Amino acid sequence: MITSLILASALALVPTQVLAADNGLAITPQMGWNTWNKYGCNIDEQLILDAAKSIVSSGLKDYGYNYVIIDDCWQKNKREKNKELLPDPTKFPRGMKALVDDIHDMGLKVGIYSSAGTLTCGGHIASLGYEETDAKTWAKWGMDYLKYDNCYNQGQSGTPKLSYDRYKAMSDALNNTGRPILYSLCNWGEDGPWNFASTIANSWRMSGDIYDNFNRADPACPCETYDCLLPGFRCSVMNIINKAVAVGQKARSGGWNDLDMLEVGNGGMSHEEYRLHYTMWAALKSPLLLGNDVTNMTSETKEIIMNKEVIAVNQDSSYSPAVRMWVKGDQQMFSGNLANNTQVVILLNAGDKAAKMTATWDDIWFYSQPHVDASKSIEVRDLWKKQSLGNFTDRISLDVPAHGVRMIKFMDSAQSS
Amino acid sequence: MITSLILASALALVPTQVLAADNGLAITPQMGWNTWNKYGCNIDEQLILDAAKSIVSSGLKDYGYNYVIIDDCWQKNKREKNKELLPDPTKFPRGMKALVDDIHDMGLKVGIYSSAGTLTCGGHIASLGYEETDAKTWAKWGMDYLKYDNCYNQGQSGTPKLSYDRYKAMSDALNNTGRPILYSLCNWGEDGPWNFASTIANSWRMSGDIYDNFNRADPACPCETYDCLLPGFRCSVMNIINKAVAVGQKARSGGWNDLDMLEVGNGGMSHEEYRLHYTMWAALKSPLLLGNDVTNMTSETKEIIMNKEVIAVNQDSSYSPAVRMWVKGDQQMFSGNLANNTQVVILLNAGDKAAKMTATWDDIWFYSQPHVDASKSIEVRDLWKKQSLGNFTDRISLDVPAHGVRMIKFMDSAQSS
Amino acid sequence: MITSLILASALALVPTQVLAADNGLAITPQMGWNTWNKYGCNIDEQLILDAAKSIVSSGLKDYGYNYVIIDDCWQKNKREKNKELLPDPTKFPRGMKALVDDIHDMGLKVGIYSSAGTLTCGGHIASLGYEETDAKTWAKWGMDYLKYDNCYNQGQSGTPKLSYDRYKAMSDALNNTGRPILYSLCNWGEDGPWNFASTIANSWRMSGDIYDNFNRADPACPCETYDCLLPGFRCSVMNIINKAVAVGQKARSGGWNDLDMLEVGNGGMSHEEYRLHYTMWAALKSPLLLGNDVTNMTSETKEIIMNKEVIAVNQDSSYSPAVRMWVKGDQQMFSGNLANNTQVVILLNAGDKAAKMTATWDDIWFYSQPHVDASKSIEVRDLWKKQSLGNFTDRISLDVPAHGVRMIKFMDSAQSS
Amino acid sequence: MITSLILASALALVPTQVLAADNGLAITPQMGWNTWNKYGCNIDEQLILDAAKSIVSSGLKDYGYNYVIIDDCWQKNKREKNKELLPDPTKFPRGMKALVDDIHDMGLKVGIYSSAGTLTCGGHIASLGYEETDAKTWAKWGMDYLKYDNCYNQGQSGTPKLSYDRYKAMSDALNNTGRPILYSLCNWGEDGPWNFASTIANSWRMSGDIYDNFNRADPACPCETYDCLLPGFRCSVMNIINKAVAVGQKARSGGWNDLDMLEVGNGGMSHEEYRLHYTMWAALKSPLLLGNDVTNMTSETKEIIMNKEVIAVNQDSSYSPAVRMWVKGDQQMFSGNLANNTQVVILLNAGDKAAKMTATWDDIWFYSQPHVDASKSIEVRDLWKKQSLGNFTDRISLDVPAHGVRMIKFMDSAQSS
Repeated sequence: MITSLILASALALVPTQVLAADNGLAITPQMGWNTWNKYGCNIDEQLILDAAKSIVSSGLKDYGYNYVIIDDCWQKNKREKNKELLPDPTKFPRGMKALVDDIHDMGLKVGIYSSAGTLTCGGHIASLGYEETDAKTWAKWGMDYLKYDNCYNQGQSGTPKLSYDRYKAMSDALNNTGRPILYSLCNWGEDGPWNFASTIANSWRMSGDIYDNFNRADPACPCETYDCLLPGFRCSVMNIINKAVAVGQKARSGGWNDLDMLEVGNGGMSHEEYRLHYTMWAALKSPLLLGNDVTNMTSETKEIIMNKEVIAVNQDSSYSPAVRMWVKGDQQMFSGNLANNTQVVILLNAGDKAAKMTATWDDIWFYSQPHVDASKSIEVRDLWKKQSLGNFTDRISLDVPAHGVRMIKFMDSAQSS
Repeated sequence: MITSLILASALALVPTQVLAADNGLAITPQMGWNTWNKYGCNIDEQLILDAAKSIVSSGLKDYGYNYVIIDDCWQKNKREKNKELLPDPTKFPRGMKALVDDIHDMGLKVGIYSSAGTLTCGGHIASLGYEETDAKTWAKWGMDYLKYDNCYNQGQSGTPKLSYDRYKAMSDALNNTGRPILYSLCNWGEDGPWNFASTIANSWRMSGDIYDNFNRADPACPCETYDCLLPGFRCSVMNIINKAVAVGQKARSGGWNDLDMLEVGNGGMSHEEYRLHYTMWAALKSPLLLGNDVTNMTSETKEIIMNKEVIAVNQDSSYSPAVRMWVKGDQQMFSGNLANNTQVVILLNAGDKAAKMTATWDDIWFYSQPHVDASKSIEVRDLWKKQSLGNFTDRISLDVPAHGVRMIKFMDSAQSS
Repeated sequence: MITSLILASALALVPTQVLAADNGLAITPQMGWNTWNKYGCNIDEQLILDAAKSIVSSGLKDYGYNYVIIDDCWQKNKREKNKELLPDPTKFPRGMKALVDDIHDMGLKVGIYSSAGTLTCGGHIASLGYEETDAKTWAKWGMDYLKYDNCYNQGQSGTPKLSYDRYKAMSDALNNTGRPILYSLCNWGEDGPWNFASTIANSWRMSGDIYDNFNRADPACPCETYDCLLPGFRCSVMNIINKAVAVGQKARSGGWNDLDMLEVGNGGMSHEEYRLHYTMWAALKSPLLLGNDVTNMTSETKEIIMNKEVIAVNQDSSYSPAVRMWVKGDQQMFSGNLANNTQVVILLNAGDKAAKMTATWDDIWFYSQPHVDASKSIEVRDLWKKQSLGNFTDRISLDVPAHGVRMIKFMDSAQSS
Repeated sequence: MITSLILASALALVPTQVLAADNGLAITPQMGWNTWNKYGCNIDEQLILDAAKSIVSSGLKDYGYNYVIIDDCWQKNKREKNKELLPDPTKFPRGMKALVDDIHDMGLKVGIYSSAGTLTCGGHIASLGYEETDAKTWAKWGMDYLKYDNCYNQGQSGTPKLSYDRYKAMSDALNNTGRPILYSLCNWGEDGPWNFASTIANSWRMSGDIYDNFNRADPACPCETYDCLLPGFRCSVMNIINKAVAVGQKARSGGWNDLDMLEVGNGGMSHEEYRLHYTMWAALKSPLLLGNDVTNMTSETKEIIMNKEVIAVNQDSSYSPAVRMWVKGDQQMFSGNLANNTQVVILLNAGDKAAKMTATWDDIWFYSQPHVDASKSIEVRDLWKKQSLGNFTDRISLDVPAHGVRMIKFMDSAQSS
C-alpha cells in the first residue's frame, strides 16, 4: 500500500543525472579532510602531503575519506598578467599541479578553495568576476573539488536571485571545464541555498561556521534558527543541529545540506560530545569532512571517525536525512530511513545529566501512520557498541549519557503492509 | 444603514470579469480530485480512468467534484526535438489526449501539473522558460486546469516582483491559448501570493504542503504564521488553519486561498479530525480537492465529503471566507457571511477534551456593530447533523468533541437595520 | 544652551520648499472628510454635495476641515478610447468637473482616489501605467488631492525601491500638471514609506486599514508593530497607535504619517474611546480626515471633532508629533513640543478601569535632560475641559477614565536655560 | 600549537592594502571630534576654529584625536551653475578652503558631511547623483574625511546590492580624487554594511543614532538587535552595545563598526555611565569621535577621554574588538586580544546596584580552549585606576559600580602552548 513514507522516499529516487550540478558527483555526501579547522592559514605543501599520507596509512581512506581539501590562504597576493591566480610560492614551491599529482597517486582526490567575492574570508584574492579563468586553472591542476565561500561579495546577496546568479556563474564555469569538479557552495545559508542551490551545487552550507564547542551561546552566531541575516561563526554543535532540522527536507542525492567541517579530535569537546557531533552529521547527511590533525590521532578520535556502521548510515543509498521526530526539553529523537527496510534512530540527550530515553514504534515510523505494527518484534543494533541489543517490541528504552547519544539501527521496519 | 459588514461584502461583489486570471473560472472555489496525496508518483492512465469512473459512479461528480487533476510524474524524461513535453509512454501509452477525451466524455474536466522551475518537485522536466510551448500542448490535449508548482525556480523568488513575473509568464501563456484553463498557483505562500496573484491566477497555495495529521509539530514545516521563509511540508491541519486566518481577507471570487488538497479518507486522522479538516477548508473557501482513493471509500469518508449543505457553504455566492472571531486557548469561533442574509458559524475545539462552547450574537455579527439585535430569535441548523437545532436568542451553546467542530447555519441575521 | 530638544526641533525647521512632494502643501496635516469609512462604494454626486454643504453649514469648514475626498468606486468600468478614465455616469451624471466646481464654490477643496495598481481595492480601473493621463484628467477637473492606494500592484513591492519607483511615477505626473495636488500615498506602510516617501508625497499611511473598534485583535490585521508583511485591515485604534509610535520620528512639515481616516461618530466605540482616538490622531500629527455622516452628527461627535484647542495641537507650527515617553502596562504617556515653548501631554489609559496617572516634569521634558527645572511652576490647561487646571510643580496627577485620555497643555516649558 | 584564537587573529593580520576603501586609512579606528552631538545645525567657522584650537591646547590632539569633522548644515541651499556645492556664506564667509587650511596648520585633519540621498537628514542639499562633483570639491578644499549619511535615499535600499551600489559610487569618487579621504559610511546598519561595506568604506554605522542616555527604551529606536528595519535615533548606550556584540566579528583593520559619536561630557549620563560608554566604544573598536564642547570640559570629562591606556586598547595593533564572553542578567563580561600576548577584560554591570563580578581564566581565554592554564599567575592592571592590581591565578573578582565597568588588562596570556 502506498503511504506518505514511500512518497517521501520517492523524492530521493529521482534520477541523479538531472539534479545538483549535473556533474554526477556526491551521490552520497562527500567525505574527506580539510585544512581549515586545525591549521587555518598556516598551511603549506608539506603539511598537506603529510596529511594525505596519513589518510592513507591510518586507514581513513579505506573508510571513504577521499577528498583532501586545501582551504583558504594558498594564494599569491596578486593575479598574473594573464589573470591567472597562482599559489603562494613560499608555501607551494612546486606549484599546485605537482602536489595534486602526488595526492592523486595516493588514490585520493584534491579540493581547493575560493570565494564568490573580491576577497576570500582570509583577505586573499578571490574569484568573483574571474569564474571562467579560475575554474580553468583549477581543472588544469587536476582539482576535483571546490569550496566556494561568500566573503566580500560586493553586496550581491539579499534575494535568492542575487545569490543564485553569483554562485551559478562558478557552477557554469566548473562544468565548462569538462572536468568533474564537486561544487561545495558555502554561503552560510544566506537567501536559502536549500531552495536555490540544488540545481547548481553538490552541497551548500546552511549555517554560520562551526566551532569546537558543544552548546555555548556566542554573540558571533546570533541566530537560533535557519532564518538568519547574520550567520556568523562560533556556532556550536547544538546550534547547528537545531538549525539543520528544518532544512533536512531539502537534501537530495547530489545536493546536500553541509553542516560544516568536523571538529572531532580538536580538543574542545568531550568524547561523548564528539560522538554526538559525528552521529548527527552522519545521520543528517552532511558531508563528513575531518578537521583534525590526521597525522596524530588518539584512539578515541579514531573510534569515532572510523566506525563503518555509522559511516554507512551517512552513505546509505536511501539518501534520506534522519528527521527529528520529537523534542522533549533537552531530549530529541531522530529517525531516518535506510536501505533494505532498515531504520536508524538516534536518542539525543543535550542535558547535563544522563537520562533514560524511550522511542516507540509509533514515533519511529510516524510517517507510516496508520500502518505501524506496534507488536512487531525487531532486532536492534547499537552502532557505537557494534553489537545487537536483541529484539524489541513496541518500544525501546536506553540510557543516554549527558551531552550524548545512542545511535541504533532497526534491522526491519514496523511499517505494516 | 450602511455598515462595515456591507462594505466588506462589497469587495466580493466586484464584477468577476476583471479579477483573477480574467478567465471567468473559479467563480466559486474549484472542486475535484488530485492524484498526489494518495498515489504520489505511482500514477498511470488506468489509475486515473478508474478514479474518474468512480467519481461519476459514486456520485461525487453530482456533489460538484468535477476536476480530475493529474499531479507530478506524468512526464517523459526529455523534451521532444520541437521542445514539446510528452507524457511518459509507459504510464500513458495512448498519450494524454485520449485520456482527456475519455474523461471529458464522463462529463468531467481534467487538470495537469508542472512547476515554474527547471524541474518539478519530483525531479521531472518543468516549464520555466517553456511557458508558451507547454501551455499550447496542454490546450491541445484539452486540459482545463493547471497546478503550477515552485520547485527548482533558479532563485527567482525573494520579492513579490520576482515571483509575480515568473508566474505571470504562465498566466499569459494559458490565456494566449484561447482555452479557458483554471490556473492554480502553487508557490506555498512565498512572497505573499495573496497580494500579487489575484490578477493572474484563480487560486494560490498559502502554506507548505499538508500531511495527514491533525496538529503535530514537524521540523519540515517550521513556521506557525503566514509569514514564512521555509514553507516546507508535513504541515498539519491546525498549522494550516492558523496560517490561513490572516490571509482570508484576500480571497475573492475568481481568486482563492488554497489550503492544499484534502486528506480525508487517507487514514492519518480520526473521523472528528477529518470532519474538522473538511469543515474549515469549506468555510475558508479553499478549493476542495479530494486526495483519497475514490474507488474505495468508507461510509465515514463519504459522510464527510458528500454533504450538500457543507459544500454549499464553500460554494456560496457571498464568496466570503469565514473569519475567526475569537481564540480562547484551544477553542476558536469562526463566522462567515452567506447569501440571503444567512450566516455560517463554526465552533472549533482543538483541545484533547470535549467542551461546551458558546457563540453570542454580538460575536457572530461583530462586524455589524453597533447594529446587532441580541434579542432576535434565529433558527439554527446543524450542517453535519442535517437538522434544525431550533430557535435561539442572544447566544448558542453546544457540546463540541475533542479535535472537532460544530458547524451551524443561522437562517437569518441578527444585524438590525 | 543647545540641547537635544533643540536639535530635534531643528529637523522640523527645514525649509518646507525642499521637502515632500515639493508642492508646498500639507505644511500642517491635511484636514477634511472622506466618503469611505461611512459609505464605501455607495456614493454619488448628491451624497457628496450634501456632505460638502453640511461641512460648511455645521461649521466644520471653519475648524479647518477643507478637503472633500471622493474615495473608491467613482469610476466607469472602462477607459475611454483616448485612455481617459471617466466617472460612473449613473453616480455622477454631470461629470466630475461640475461637482468639483460646486464644491470649490463653497470654499472647499476636492480630492479623488485611485490605486498604484491595475485595479483599485474595490476592483475598479486604476492608474498603474496611466499616471500621466490620469493626473492630467484630475487636474482638468480641478482636483486638489489624490489618495493613491496599493491594491493589485502587480508584485511591484518588496523593496523600498520597487515601491518608491511606483509611487514616484504618480508624484511626477501630479507635479507635471502644474496644479498643486496634495499627494496622499496609501501603501499601508509596506517597504517603509516613512523612509522613502517624504520627498514624493505629503502623507503616507503607516498601517493597515482602521476599523471602528478600540482594541480588538483581528486576524485580518495580524501585526502588532510597524514592521509588517501583511498590513491588512480591521486594525483597531490601539493597534494603530502602537505601530505609530515608532515612526513618529519620520514626520515632517509637508510629509506626515497617516494613521488612516477617523471613525469618530460611526458608532463602534464609546465616547471616551472616540475622544482617545481623536486625541492621538491629532497629537501624532496624522491627517484629520472625518469618516462619519457629517449631515447628521450627535452633539457628542461634534464635541470631539470641533475642539479648536485640540485641532490647534495637530496644526501647531512646531510640526512635532508627540512622543510616547513611557509605557506602564495599560498606561502610556505622550509629550509633544508646541510652538511658543508650550507642550502637550497625553495621559492614556487603555485599561478597563479608571486610573490615576502621573507625569513628572522629568518625564515630560525628558529630551531636555539635564536641563529640566522640576521646581518650576507651570500652568496646565485641560484641552477637552477647555479650562485651566491651575499651576503645578514637579508633577501632575490626574484621573483618567478607562479606555480614555486626559489631554493637557503646559503653558510654559520646564526646560532650564 | 595552532588554536582557534590564533585563527581568529589571522583575520586581522590580512595586509591592509587590500581591505576597506583601499585608501590605507583607519588602520586603527579613527579619532577626532564632530560638531553634531553638541551643536547640531548651529555651526559656523568660528565655532569650528575654536574647537580645533582647544583640541590642540587641551592636549586632545596628543591623545590621538586628530580629525575635526563638520557635520550637517554647512551647505548653501542651492548648487552653483557648475553643480558645485558651496558652504553657506553666512556661516563660512571665507569659504571652506581657508578654514581647512587653518585647521591643517594646527596639525589636525578635517572632515565633511553629506548624504547618499537627495537631501541630508537636516534637509540640506546632498550628494546622490553628484558623487564625482562633490568628491572633487571636497578634495579641492583639502578634506581628509567624509561622513556619508542615508537620508532621503529615494528608496535605494532594501537589499545589500542597492545599498552597496549607492555607497560605492561615492567610494569610487573619493578614490578618483587621488586624495586619501577617510570614508565613514553612515547608513545606520541597513542591509548589513558589516557584510557589504568593508571593501568600500573605512567604517560603517551599525545602529540608529545615539543619544545621551544610558539605557532608556525609546520608541524612536524600536529594535533591540542588529537586525532592524527602522534604526531610528535616541538609541541608548546599552541599546547600541547590545546590538554591537553580534557584528564585532566583522571589524577589520581599515574597516570598523561605528557605534556613533561619543556623548561623554554632554550631561545626560553619570560619570560612571560615561566611563562605561567610553570603555565599550574603545574596546569594541569603534571610531572615537568626541561630541562634546571641547572648549569647556570638566575634569571628569577629561579623565575619561584623556586616558592613554584606554585609548591604547582602541588603537591596539591586534585590531580585535573585545568579545562578549557571557551575559548573566544585568552583568556582561568582555574579553579582547591585545598585542604582545596581553588581553583586555571588561566587567560591565548594567544593573542599578553595585556588584562583585568574577572572570575566570577559562572564560577570558575561552577561545583558546582546551589550552588554558588556569594555574597561571598573571599581573592585572586597572586601566581606569592606572595601577596594577597585583597578580592573580585562575580568576579575578572585582567590585563593579552600578551602571559601571571595571576595565582591566592582563599583562600575559593564560593560553598554554
